[in-house]
Amino acid sequence: MPIRDDAAIEVSAYDWVPEPAKGLVKDLRVRWMLEELGLPYRVRFLQAFAPKPDDYMKEQPFGQVPTYRDDEVQLFESGAILIYLAEKHNALLPFGPATKARAIGWLCAGLSSVEPFVQQFALINSFYKDEEWAKLRQAGAEEMARLRLKQLADWLGDRDTLEEDFTIGDMMMASVLRIGEKLPLFAEFPTLRAYLDRATVRPAFQAALSAQLAGFTASSPQPAAA
Amino acid sequence: MPIRDDAAIEVSAYDWVPEPAKGLVKDLRVRWMLEELGLPYRVRFLQAFAPKPDDYMKEQPFGQVPTYRDDEVQLFESGAILIYLAEKHNALLPFGPATKARAIGWLCAGLSSVEPFVQQFALINSFYKDEEWAKLRQAGAEEMARLRLKQLADWLGDRDTLEEDFTIGDMMMASVLRIGEKLPLFAEFPTLRAYLDRATVRPAFQAALSAQLAGFTASSPQPAAA
Repeated sequence: MPIRDDAAIEVSAYDWVPEPAKGLVKDLRVRWMLEELGLPYRVRFLQAFAPKPDDYMKEQPFGQVPTYRDDEVQLFESGAILIYLAEKHNALLPFGPATKARAIGWLCAGLSSVEPFVQQFALINSFYKDEEWAKLRQAGAEEMARLRLKQLADWLGDRDTLEEDFTIGDMMMASVLRIGEKLPLFAEFPTLRAYLDRATVRPAFQAALSAQLAGFTASSPQPAAA
Repeated sequence: MPIRDDAAIEVSAYDWVPEPAKGLVKDLRVRWMLEELGLPYRVRFLQAFAPKPDDYMKEQPFGQVPTYRDDEVQLFESGAILIYLAEKHNALLPFGPATKARAIGWLCAGLSSVEPFVQQFALINSFYKDEEWAKLRQAGAEEMARLRLKQLADWLGDRDTLEEDFTIGDMMMASVLRIGEKLPLFAEFPTLRAYLDRATVRPAFQAALSAQLAGFTASSPQPAAA
């Protein structure tokens, strides 16, 4: 377990989130990468539903988690942190410009071409599910998510990974698919189920997931006084 | 104008899109980069609302534009193409690991923390505007877009660029902001208006925009026979 209070690397995370978000908060992506690399890190805990401290907004202008810092750089955006760490440690990203660019392409595809559609449909089925607009939008959002998942499954076919080797592109895509993996829609794609299982069975992923879950030590926040 | 039929670089684009999408299709991001670099390219035109050829789906599993190819690599995802070109030509991306990572961080922030919210609100105000769910969701989507725009404006303050120099992070962020720039919401943020104007006044952007617009030479597609 590479969490160590005196580690040079710091990652931010929440001390509590609602049940459906546990195991999905995006610091998991960075923890996973650090576990793959065997790098110790310390955690800066924040409250998810409280205003963020001013010094945190300077590190993360959108007030989200995760942030990342080491002796060299202070960063935000899980995709950029994965690229930075992969390049720095020459791991999980091919060295040749063409194969490297393809891996970064899949990382961007996860963030930009898959996540928004899976996320929107997942939120409509959880956070927003009692809202009238969500009921009216559900079928349309499902069609959009289904199309992206089908296209991804078609690409994968019988490949083990998106390209020849397992890269940060697979780590991002698997992280994104997990947002929707419990939806009935996801069961339509055994190819994606198997792809995701291959990624999440990795010891580094399991260690990162356990560490995130173990960090939710605060009680549910009190509603603000009216 | 670097469009040249015998160029080594190929970019895909549509031959027609509906009026509100003109000037916003994502091949513009790659054309802009190529103009900044002074690199000639040829265009592979596709029909936006027709099934894509099988060989295209092998290049772009989600059937979108743009794709990019040169003598070395075949790529998709505008963010990844920008990173690849910036590294290859040592331009618009700082060389030091820390400053480079920050620039890639902003590119990812554009794609992941700003675009989905601006895009969703823009679509609710255009493509979906007559749908009941969109009317019910409009205020909520506006609040989410406003928050991200406010946070970005707060970061910028009186900076000219997101970090010290103009980078592919600014190119992506400006490209994303353009999706929402005609909405009344955008007028609440003069900081963002000025930031966007500084980016789009660049001759490379203007040349790329003209080239995309000049490529919409097809007539509106006929509705499919019932």
